[in-house]
Amino acid sequence: MTVSGPSHLGAAPDKSESEHWAQWAKAEPIWDWPGGKHVAVTITFDVDAETGAFSMGDEYLQRLATLSEARFGVVRGVPRILDLFRRFDLKTTFFVPGWTAENYPHVIESILKDGHEIGHHGYVHTSVNKASPDVQREEMERGFEALESVGAPRPRGYRNPGGEMTAETTALLHEFGFLYDSSFMGDDRPYVEKHGEIELLELPWHWSLDDWPYFGFAADYGGNTVTAETWRQNMWDEYEHARDEHRAVNIVCHPEFSGRGYRFKQLEALLAAIVADSQAWIPTMEELARHVKPKLWPVGAEGVRGDGKTKARGTHLETTGDDGRKNQYSGDRAGI
Amino acid sequence: MTVSGPSHLGAAPDKSESEHWAQWAKAEPIWDWPGGKHVAVTITFDVDAETGAFSMGDEYLQRLATLSEARFGVVRGVPRILDLFRRFDLKTTFFVPGWTAENYPHVIESILKDGHEIGHHGYVHTSVNKASPDVQREEMERGFEALESVGAPRPRGYRNPGGEMTAETTALLHEFGFLYDSSFMGDDRPYVEKHGEIELLELPWHWSLDDWPYFGFAADYGGNTVTAETWRQNMWDEYEHARDEHRAVNIVCHPEFSGRGYRFKQLEALLAAIVADSQAWIPTMEELARHVKPKLWPVGAEGVRGDGKTKARGTHLETTGDDGRKNQYSGDRAGI
Amino acid sequence: MTVSGPSHLGAAPDKSESEHWAQWAKAEPIWDWPGGKHVAVTITFDVDAETGAFSMGDEYLQRLATLSEARFGVVRGVPRILDLFRRFDLKTTFFVPGWTAENYPHVIESILKDGHEIGHHGYVHTSVNKASPDVQREEMERGFEALESVGAPRPRGYRNPGGEMTAETTALLHEFGFLYDSSFMGDDRPYVEKHGEIELLELPWHWSLDDWPYFGFAADYGGNTVTAETWRQNMWDEYEHARDEHRAVNIVCHPEFSGRGYRFKQLEALLAAIVADSQAWIPTMEELARHVKPKLWPVGAEGVRGDGKTKARGTHLETTGDDGRKNQYSGDRAGI
Amino acid sequence: MTVSGPSHLGAAPDKSESEHWAQWAKAEPIWDWPGGKHVAVTITFDVDAETGAFSMGDEYLQRLATLSEARFGVVRGVPRILDLFRRFDLKTTFFVPGWTAENYPHVIESILKDGHEIGHHGYVHTSVNKASPDVQREEMERGFEALESVGAPRPRGYRNPGGEMTAETTALLHEFGFLYDSSFMGDDRPYVEKHGEIELLELPWHWSLDDWPYFGFAADYGGNTVTAETWRQNMWDEYEHARDEHRAVNIVCHPEFSGRGYRFKQLEALLAAIVADSQAWIPTMEELARHVKPKLWPVGAEGVRGDGKTKARGTHLETTGDDGRKNQYSGDRAGI
Repeated sequence: MTVSGPSHLGAAPDKSESEHWAQWAKAEPIWDWPGGKHVAVTITFDVDAETGAFSMGDEYLQRLATLSEARFGVVRGVPRILDLFRRFDLKTTFFVPGWTAENYPHVIESILKDGHEIGHHGYVHTSVNKASPDVQREEMERGFEALESVGAPRPRGYRNPGGEMTAETTALLHEFGFLYDSSFMGDDRPYVEKHGEIELLELPWHWSLDDWPYFGFAADYGGNTVTAETWRQNMWDEYEHARDEHRAVNIVCHPEFSGRGYRFKQLEALLAAIVADSQAWIPTMEELARHVKPKLWPVGAEGVRGDGKTKARGTHLETTGDDGRKNQYSGDRAGI
Repeated sequence: MTVSGPSHLGAAPDKSESEHWAQWAKAEPIWDWPGGKHVAVTITFDVDAETGAFSMGDEYLQRLATLSEARFGVVRGVPRILDLFRRFDLKTTFFVPGWTAENYPHVIESILKDGHEIGHHGYVHTSVNKASPDVQREEMERGFEALESVGAPRPRGYRNPGGEMTAETTALLHEFGFLYDSSFMGDDRPYVEKHGEIELLELPWHWSLDDWPYFGFAADYGGNTVTAETWRQNMWDEYEHARDEHRAVNIVCHPEFSGRGYRFKQLEALLAAIVADSQAWIPTMEELARHVKPKLWPVGAEGVRGDGKTKARGTHLETTGDDGRKNQYSGDRAGI
Repeated sequence: MTVSGPSHLGAAPDKSESEHWAQWAKAEPIWDWPGGKHVAVTITFDVDAETGAFSMGDEYLQRLATLSEARFGVVRGVPRILDLFRRFDLKTTFFVPGWTAENYPHVIESILKDGHEIGHHGYVHTSVNKASPDVQREEMERGFEALESVGAPRPRGYRNPGGEMTAETTALLHEFGFLYDSSFMGDDRPYVEKHGEIELLELPWHWSLDDWPYFGFAADYGGNTVTAETWRQNMWDEYEHARDEHRAVNIVCHPEFSGRGYRFKQLEALLAAIVADSQAWIPTMEELARHVKPKLWPVGAEGVRGDGKTKARGTHLETTGDDGRKNQYSGDRAGI
Repeated sequence: MTVSGPSHLGAAPDKSESEHWAQWAKAEPIWDWPGGKHVAVTITFDVDAETGAFSMGDEYLQRLATLSEARFGVVRGVPRILDLFRRFDLKTTFFVPGWTAENYPHVIESILKDGHEIGHHGYVHTSVNKASPDVQREEMERGFEALESVGAPRPRGYRNPGGEMTAETTALLHEFGFLYDSSFMGDDRPYVEKHGEIELLELPWHWSLDDWPYFGFAADYGGNTVTAETWRQNMWDEYEHARDEHRAVNIVCHPEFSGRGYRFKQLEALLAAIVADSQAWIPTMEELARHVKPKLWPVGAEGVRGDGKTKARGTHLETTGDDGRKNQYSGDRAGI
């Protein structure tokens, strides 16, 4: 007898993957955040500009008011955000679609001038789950080309525009040798997103930590209308929870949403409160990735680089944290 | 003349059912909660893992990020929840789809190790109102087989994935002899969900006491963005109301929603407040079912077991509570 | 040249109707609420039971869990509401579809036993804007027949199920001689809803004063998840505003929504606060209608009765309130 | 290779436009608000009446209850708003569709009598992104004719009904020589909305400062149910942020939404708080436009008038504020 409703049976992970998640679920990594900090906080920005509207369909090319709303992100949002991080002398990561970089090169310039990281965010915000493999490849390649054309260093990290991933996208990340990905939601700690032979160093995000569900609104689709303080309260509670667990927390904002006046006040208040708490390490995504990578793989493994060494995982099991404590995650995995 | 709009006239309950509900509406059962407690509280969990995404259509099989979001429930959510209940030395009930059990057997193992109950939750979260009778039967049978294959005791209770029920599902529950069901919303007290000859011992739920409406969010469908404290405030008010009425209250959570950091803090706070109030009996669903069954049926009746004896209901009318008080519900039903 | 987008030009009110609303907009009726009260408050209930689900399509006839959710209204909601009003010794109005009356006659019986008013709410909650004239007529006629069959007095008031009205519905109200209607939203004071020759004594409602937008939730459609206190806060603010304007306010609830535990607590709190304020007259809808009718029409006019006398309106312009003050509304209309 | 997903490549602004936004992003205009005030506040109203429902499709012409809900705006909303502004001796701007003016001429009369400005809001609220060029032109022309027919001065400003703009709409604004537009969202300061040769003096709005997302609700589409205080809190926070930046803030309300009792209380409270703060200049939109125009263009340029002089922008670069300070924006643009 066969279940004839959803034809999902092929989706079952094989037993080795199941075992992988079973082990990881029990892991208690010791992250040893620099400076003895208790939590690693990244507040990162997706600089979509008009590409977010493009991805809603060709009809939106004629919608000049909607496009102007999106443009607000690069005209008003990014400068405010840069100023905010400058005031606190902090660096963070901006994920920029290629189209945005080509059309607003001054945005790239100003981000780089302040010492921030630029990540890959596709070319025109195409939803990968609706795109052919060819389009996905073009999105990847043109994203690189565009960033290079305006003088950005080759990005080391990727965040998918739209928040979805397919097997093709995962394979492309592997092929192009990213240091880290920030598109999956399988944990609230840095982790290894494993799909068969492909293993991605994952700095995860989640809708509940993204400002779009809180602030996005379109005449055709609606949206929520909570106070901006509601957003801050949830983010702060997540911060406290992450701090108690000594883990990382990754908050995702968009300049066209959180760069608006009354919301930006709450972003300022959130960052000020985190800084004042004195317990947070606030790195760029790349810095975070470099710090956690040896905690997640044994020495010598190469993460997503696709060099075949990742299968060596599990043979070198013991790592030692900066404070001399054994890396319990590796310990837990000794039995694999 | 015939109403030609909705062709609903066939849906009218016959007079005997109408009378059933009229009597029950007047009933004031004395539940006699163990230990003299004033309220029975169950906080129960549906461990869907990827099956929730499966039920949204085959397209979701390719959506690796969405699937990773669902996987969070078994990797991060369940361990947190188990830890929480361990701290309070409490047992509760997890409803687990067969697919989840087969693919994450460690989840079943860890739930059982801590002494919790496992309930039936279908096989792959198929929406029964969109499924053929054959698919419904397969969902039921494979759900049993999968739980058995990973060492779980045969489940005594059922909660429908998706929150809907059809006549076929109700007949299957009857046929398979469940002790209780937790899929209907016809009362906020334990009650008898009656459909013709079939009578189910019902431990009801409701959307307003489920965390999905509060926390679920998908790019294609949207969702709400209240603070997690909003959820807790409503749950606590429901608890107080149930306590004042000396009834039961059944809160339904999903590890992939309430297991997220800032929400989990509120789940912890809710449970801590209920425990501190010292007036709640906090059983598993099976314990609750065994306690209320004799209050709802006279001695000797067999509930949903399908042995024909349920029709004897109404012939033995008087039961006596633990404290010697007459069971007023039985009294009320004397006239049936 | 013709606007070829929406073909709405025929919808323009003629100048006499425009002038009608211009005059009414300037009116400041003196309502002279009984007992010198400053505000008239009606908290009224639509007892849909399963008919609300019926109106969502035939598919819902198979959805037993959704139907049980709707049934909650008559099993749990109405008894709680009756008890609440009994405690305060208040009478209100329940709008009951014919199907509900036929299938739950005990609900009608208990409402009448407590001295409340029963209004017409159609037969099976058919959306009039999707119904043929014949179906609309049948809804009206069977609604009357069903209420009569279970011993209810012939209803004097009507509220449309679903909150829409068409020209056919308006004509039916006129033909059947209702004292008042409560389906339009053109004012927040009692007023005359005028459509050509037809004039309805209107006791208006509005979505912002209805509990469905706050509490309704369905798996297929979603819904909001604010705290129940949010609902109460808005209702109380409306009460204060109505009190300051010495007008009426009409709050609409559904037993299956507001009869749920944590929401019911807020309904209780709202009513308790209004009673404690000592400035509210809390009548049934019929009492309110009888009180305001002479303020809205000159002596001798017959409202919606369809006897042709309504056109006499405007020839007798002066009425005098209970306290001897001139009815300014009539005064304002002297120039018509 | 060509991206074959969204065919958006034609949407790329040319480099001169990109440079325009780059310069403007860096601009820090000194607005020199009259009276030394720190912020310019406009609370403006779109008096749609039934036209909002018309734009939802011909079906809505039969929906009498929905139409009555819309009519509330002119019967109850506008009078309340006029009274509020009279109490504070303030003038503001009402954007009125032609249909509303023709059918409720008393509304135009009462707005003008109190000295407020009337802006162009189309004829029947047609969504320009769904309309042909001919329909768009007719909307524009009939809007003018209708306002003229009821004695309104020729409007100097335009706000698009529905909040969208196309190239045709932009060209029409240019052709008809409006002083200002209030339909784009590209900044939260007054700015120049540039589309090729066309440059509009823009007094921008945004959904987050519009009351429809907060209060709009329809049975077919749903809506949000926050407290009205939530709206006020966000608006006040935006006010504070604008005051800190010495910029303008433009709040958009609809009489049928914010004119409802409990919401109107918050509108009153918001305006009272702003007045009490003593730091706001509260002009009409036209007054604001006349004040900011010379800050945005050099002396002699003609804004959107279409006289060819707008291209002279950038050749006269220095302006001086009322207090003798150099206009930094012009200064910033010296290098163009």
